[in-house]
Amino acid sequence: MTPKIARFLEDVRPATPCLVLDVDRVEENYRALAAALPLARIYYAVKANPAAPILTRLVGLGSAFDAASWEEIAMCLEAGADPADISFGNTVKKESAIVRAYDAGVRLFAFDSEGELEKLARSAPGAKVYCRLLVENAGADWPLSRKFGCSVETARELMLRAKEVGLDPYGLSFHVGSQQRDSVAYEAAIAKVGMLFTDLSERGVTLRMVNLGGGFPVRYTSEVPGIDHFAQAIMGAMTKAFGNAIPEMIVEPGRFIVGDAGVVSSEVVLVSRKAKDDPVRWVYLDIGRFGGLAETEGESIKYRLRTPHDGGRTGPVAIAGPTCDGADILYERANYRLPLALKSGDRVDLLSAGAYVTTYAAQGFNGFQPLAEHYI
Amino acid sequence: MTPKIARFLEDVRPATPCLVLDVDRVEENYRALAAALPLARIYYAVKANPAAPILTRLVGLGSAFDAASWEEIAMCLEAGADPADISFGNTVKKESAIVRAYDAGVRLFAFDSEGELEKLARSAPGAKVYCRLLVENAGADWPLSRKFGCSVETARELMLRAKEVGLDPYGLSFHVGSQQRDSVAYEAAIAKVGMLFTDLSERGVTLRMVNLGGGFPVRYTSEVPGIDHFAQAIMGAMTKAFGNAIPEMIVEPGRFIVGDAGVVSSEVVLVSRKAKDDPVRWVYLDIGRFGGLAETEGESIKYRLRTPHDGGRTGPVAIAGPTCDGADILYERANYRLPLALKSGDRVDLLSAGAYVTTYAAQGFNGFQPLAEHYI
Repeated sequence: MTPKIARFLEDVRPATPCLVLDVDRVEENYRALAAALPLARIYYAVKANPAAPILTRLVGLGSAFDAASWEEIAMCLEAGADPADISFGNTVKKESAIVRAYDAGVRLFAFDSEGELEKLARSAPGAKVYCRLLVENAGADWPLSRKFGCSVETARELMLRAKEVGLDPYGLSFHVGSQQRDSVAYEAAIAKVGMLFTDLSERGVTLRMVNLGGGFPVRYTSEVPGIDHFAQAIMGAMTKAFGNAIPEMIVEPGRFIVGDAGVVSSEVVLVSRKAKDDPVRWVYLDIGRFGGLAETEGESIKYRLRTPHDGGRTGPVAIAGPTCDGADILYERANYRLPLALKSGDRVDLLSAGAYVTTYAAQGFNGFQPLAEHYI
Repeated sequence: MTPKIARFLEDVRPATPCLVLDVDRVEENYRALAAALPLARIYYAVKANPAAPILTRLVGLGSAFDAASWEEIAMCLEAGADPADISFGNTVKKESAIVRAYDAGVRLFAFDSEGELEKLARSAPGAKVYCRLLVENAGADWPLSRKFGCSVETARELMLRAKEVGLDPYGLSFHVGSQQRDSVAYEAAIAKVGMLFTDLSERGVTLRMVNLGGGFPVRYTSEVPGIDHFAQAIMGAMTKAFGNAIPEMIVEPGRFIVGDAGVVSSEVVLVSRKAKDDPVRWVYLDIGRFGGLAETEGESIKYRLRTPHDGGRTGPVAIAGPTCDGADILYERANYRLPLALKSGDRVDLLSAGAYVTTYAAQGFNGFQPLAEHYI
């Protein structure tokens, strides 16, 4: 928690649940990443948090943007971004959204299938396109499954085809999974990309860009390697794959930029036990999986918690949200412990909760409004 | 799909994604349940769909309401409900919400812990309270976990205590899990409740009400037993437990009332294969787990799908939502098959999708707006 956030929580005591996010920390994170990977252009993953104060600050810093939808592109433009600095990074787009983006000046598009390539050829003629490869996500706390990307063979055919249909076969992308803690995932993916570059070059298509995706981790309950560790591994792998002819590089950090810039402040609604002698207390907060903490699904992202009783004796707890839904449980198996003194009405702050919370809140689950947002 | 919905989809061709819900079917379902269980008072579980046209229709039919939050209580009052017909059914409530409900005239409250009982004693003096027991959820497609309810021993103590602190120890409740397909779950729970009634009566507390919760199933991809089957099992178990002295009965159906009254209409954004020879196609819809289809988590609720190519040859598919989130997959292991002719731009309707969709949609996940709603 930054001093500015601590002061805001102390002075303002905002109604809970809410996100308080320090935009200065966003800038610090952007600068740290830019310093660690000077050869890479940063495309902020807007979906992590699309709030105007964040986008505006990043525009001022010269950031580019990775958008998941036309609506996110519109938010970037509203914040002053140059359409030339926006990548439409979702491989699954309605053609109407492609038309809108192209009309607004966006010229960089992701894809991973023939159907999407056809849409782009029709509705974004001449645009730079990059194909997303399916890579291993081992080591990621929030893996991205098989939903995105295609095989190397399919990517090869699609990039050859891209040229034929009047698009600019610009590069390749991959995503090692979000909150990725192992740099080996990047190294394996870069090696795969390097081979496909060579292969396509021999067939007359010279790619110019590698999009490394995002995934850089934030410290939750466990320590994670620093950004320099990942930067070194990435540059080592790039040099191994490309020698001196390193192509343009794109990174798409979301969590890394905004994660530790924000705190979700909540209130304890109830502390109870299922039976008198049950050692486990159930702690119910006024925010849960459907109120913004979507990434606690499967207990994947384990937020650090701060309570007014920290330092006192603790006991095991299960932690749940305020709704009548049985699935609205944050942590039941993750061995969380909280102070025995914790009671209804106490504040509980979730640290490093600036990413993937606000827009992920249900619009009215069980009647509860989405969390409030404060950008300071 | 009711004829009225089919006509609306055909004539209006509403923008997708959207819910189209036939309020006449809501009335039919209410009447069917009232006929099957004439001794039970129906408290509609507002969280299933809190839209005003539904609440207004149900008020006209004499329904009572089970609310999960103060906000849901306010919606019921707005629709004309008598506060005496509202149960505040969430066992986890902020004390400020209890105060508001009590001030508005609500006199029926659920609880399952000492902490909650203390709040009720302070802020809802004299109110009728019922304690929720933890029961088995085997047989339910959407089980409710250990989040709610307490042990029989704890419930016994709490009901004795309720009397001491000036509350009216009114009854007991349980919930067998949502989309419960096995009537045995009700029988086991009722037997447990019956024994606790006797036990408490011997200690000077005479309970008057059994709240059977909800859980009555709707037909998705699998056939389910009809409501008469559950009604018979329930009345059999009640007679066995209580003889002629059957207490007041409450049921809290949500899904059963609105589930098959609604259709979610969506559009295919993309059909693709990960590799050329992959038999499985990926079908991406413009609605996913975070756009309203929250109950597809873990592939729990398996909606029936209708496409313009039904009857044609089919092949295996994975079905996913439109966002950049790898977790936004509806069905990957559930062996769905869809027509080989299916393509981008086609409409896909999800049948019996009237429950637990609208308010569950994220407010702006990846920039996508929540689904539109049409009540006809």
